Amino acid sequence: MPVPFHPPERILLGPGPSEVSPRVLEALSRPTVGHLDPAFLGLMDEVQALLRYAFKTATPLTFCVSAPGSAGMETVFVNLLEPGDKVIICRNGVFGGRMQENARRIGAEAVMVEDDWGGPVSPEKAEAAMKKHPDAKALAFVHAETSTGARSDAEALCALAARHGCLSIVDAVTSLGGIPLEVDGWGMDAVYSGSQKCLSCVPGLSPVSFSARAVEVIRSRRKPVQSWFLDLNLVMDYWGGKGSAKDGAKDGTKDGTKAKRRRAYHHTAPVNSLYALHESLLILQEEGLENAWARHARNHRAFAAGIEALDLHLPVEESFRLPQLNAVGFPAAVDDAALRDTLLQDYGLEIGSGLGALAGKVWRIGLMGHGSRRPNVLLCLSALGNTLHRLGHQADTTAALTAAESVYASTD
Amino acid sequence: MPVPFHPPERILLGPGPSEVSPRVLEALSRPTVGHLDPAFLGLMDEVQALLRYAFKTATPLTFCVSAPGSAGMETVFVNLLEPGDKVIICRNGVFGGRMQENARRIGAEAVMVEDDWGGPVSPEKAEAAMKKHPDAKALAFVHAETSTGARSDAEALCALAARHGCLSIVDAVTSLGGIPLEVDGWGMDAVYSGSQKCLSCVPGLSPVSFSARAVEVIRSRRKPVQSWFLDLNLVMDYWGGKGSAKDGAKDGTKDGTKAKRRRAYHHTAPVNSLYALHESLLILQEEGLENAWARHARNHRAFAAGIEALDLHLPVEESFRLPQLNAVGFPAAVDDAALRDTLLQDYGLEIGSGLGALAGKVWRIGLMGHGSRRPNVLLCLSALGNTLHRLGHQADTTAALTAAESVYASTD
Repeated sequence: MPVPFHPPERILLGPGPSEVSPRVLEALSRPTVGHLDPAFLGLMDEVQALLRYAFKTATPLTFCVSAPGSAGMETVFVNLLEPGDKVIICRNGVFGGRMQENARRIGAEAVMVEDDWGGPVSPEKAEAAMKKHPDAKALAFVHAETSTGARSDAEALCALAARHGCLSIVDAVTSLGGIPLEVDGWGMDAVYSGSQKCLSCVPGLSPVSFSARAVEVIRSRRKPVQSWFLDLNLVMDYWGGKGSAKDGAKDGTKDGTKAKRRRAYHHTAPVNSLYALHESLLILQEEGLENAWARHARNHRAFAAGIEALDLHLPVEESFRLPQLNAVGFPAAVDDAALRDTLLQDYGLEIGSGLGALAGKVWRIGLMGHGSRRPNVLLCLSALGNTLHRLGHQADTTAALTAAESVYASTD
Repeated sequence: MPVPFHPPERILLGPGPSEVSPRVLEALSRPTVGHLDPAFLGLMDEVQALLRYAFKTATPLTFCVSAPGSAGMETVFVNLLEPGDKVIICRNGVFGGRMQENARRIGAEAVMVEDDWGGPVSPEKAEAAMKKHPDAKALAFVHAETSTGARSDAEALCALAARHGCLSIVDAVTSLGGIPLEVDGWGMDAVYSGSQKCLSCVPGLSPVSFSARAVEVIRSRRKPVQSWFLDLNLVMDYWGGKGSAKDGAKDGTKDGTKAKRRRAYHHTAPVNSLYALHESLLILQEEGLENAWARHARNHRAFAAGIEALDLHLPVEESFRLPQLNAVGFPAAVDDAALRDTLLQDYGLEIGSGLGALAGKVWRIGLMGHGSRRPNVLLCLSALGNTLHRLGHQADTTAALTAAESVYASTD
């Protein structure tokens, strides 16, 4: 007979979900209200305004899909592409492959541009593909590849897409809130993210944003969107794509009736998860987006210094490393699964395994959102060093901690 | 500048979300763990076992979709149907129409069987359609129409589907946990529900169950499922469709490593929402499914007696009324919106408006799950009676309360 579930205490330094702040968990548990309650409609307006802040965009159609990041990706693909459309997809890890799967299931033609796993997308190759395929409708790429820890140059890629008349589709699942991301400044047409990475909200939601140009493409489709649940022509009536940050909660009526008129029932929103997202975005705004980026960078530098002092290596070239998702290469002699199990059981510490081609070769260590904190950096280095030592490998934990602390000292 | 959101205190007697027990809210807010954590994989096994209890099924592919009920509907349709397939859809309210939308977007042919809104689906008409279309692949209907408050005879319809070689597709969004539902006993092939109705969990999840025959159809598709996110051929590897209640958490290893081997990453599960679903299903199991059905029936009888004493009427014929979702007809002179606004502002009481053809003609008053309680019945009757009176209508609140209490007295 099942009994109430009490999760073990974990420190989440994997590829996500990341550590969730107690403030967010508390917000999550506030009493549920109706999804058309005037108070809730006001919350939705605020979530949209806060997402515009995080995405650095003023675009009206900025909201969150009521499902995980994978559904955010699918929302973008099924709304922008129609059967027979051509899309250029840059693949430098697992998630480019998932984009290809999405295109295939739409009946769109995916032109794949391949780059090494662990490296960035090559703007030159992307441009060559666009030149070769002037009829391509969109260029799609992953800003921060969660499977490898590599950052691609989103600004350059979006500029190229615009120059070649392509919509830009950007996977920002792991980048939003962790590294610079300028949706309007870099001219992104469609971008999706996840709640459970650098926003440190619970998993299950996917923030998205669409440019006016993307909205026009969606409104003028020849065929209906193949998904009813994800059809933005319908979802827009609920999330109020016509609004903007300005006509949000303060619509001039006491009870938000104007907002109410703007929102037609489509599906039942995940009310409590939206409380949590709202709180996590408030936390981000309180800290300041640029400060959050700087914090991620600083904790990464300290961690990287420690990792190198442990004689482990960071396979991603420094200029393209994601501070929030560290691929850490380890010697072939190390028993990957045994080490991760020990970290989990003895320290309650979760780190991620390699995905796809990198399985058994790297760990993926996330310092994301609320998880990107000095105590976590020190704990992770200590636990890694001590566990390697116990498993019979060379590892100087003291040197690692000293190296990390010296980074903090130099940037205090 | 947004500030933390503190929802107003509400009593949720609309069509859903329903009232959420404090136990469920507390479970929701427990610390997030990784979606591949051995402890979490054990929780998933338990959720599956508990869902099998609630659905009255032993079928392995019973789990919950990581998105609201609308996505559960879409999961069923996109996995079972392919372009060119024919499906017979019975429509007696809004949600039959949504099924048609799903079929259309797949490129399947929907043969619509129309019945009056507020009445049940006619098994005779459904059978006539199956006779006329012997090539139909599936018969789809809504068990409990949330838009009208009518129950259809799921047992008879599923038996007919089986006799005519059709898969049965059942919308049990509002029936699960509120009225008798026998997935195996009645031979359902595919059934979907929602977390936020009679399970009284937070909104955002969709429990589903598929028979062995349905799984076979999915495995032998000619074309890939058009949705990557909802493709059960992939989702099964994560939710372990091959397992059963027996090989759940107790897989014989201390840390659930066998369970771990069974679950391959597909998407990041909504970890905290699953804590909540687990707790809400535990509550259901503690009460006992049959006792929960009886409770819904009893509170409905008391409520219905009160409504009639208020000279309001219940347009759905008694034998097909849903105890958990009461359509309440009101005189044309009553200002629908003003009354519902008053209930919300003066009593914190949410009831639902009519949908589609019933807009402005009925309220939809839910007594679902944790909301189906004697105090809520009395409060709702009092608030309705007093508000009607204040708005200048005839309404004898005392008579309504007396009528309701006499039902409780007779069934004590």
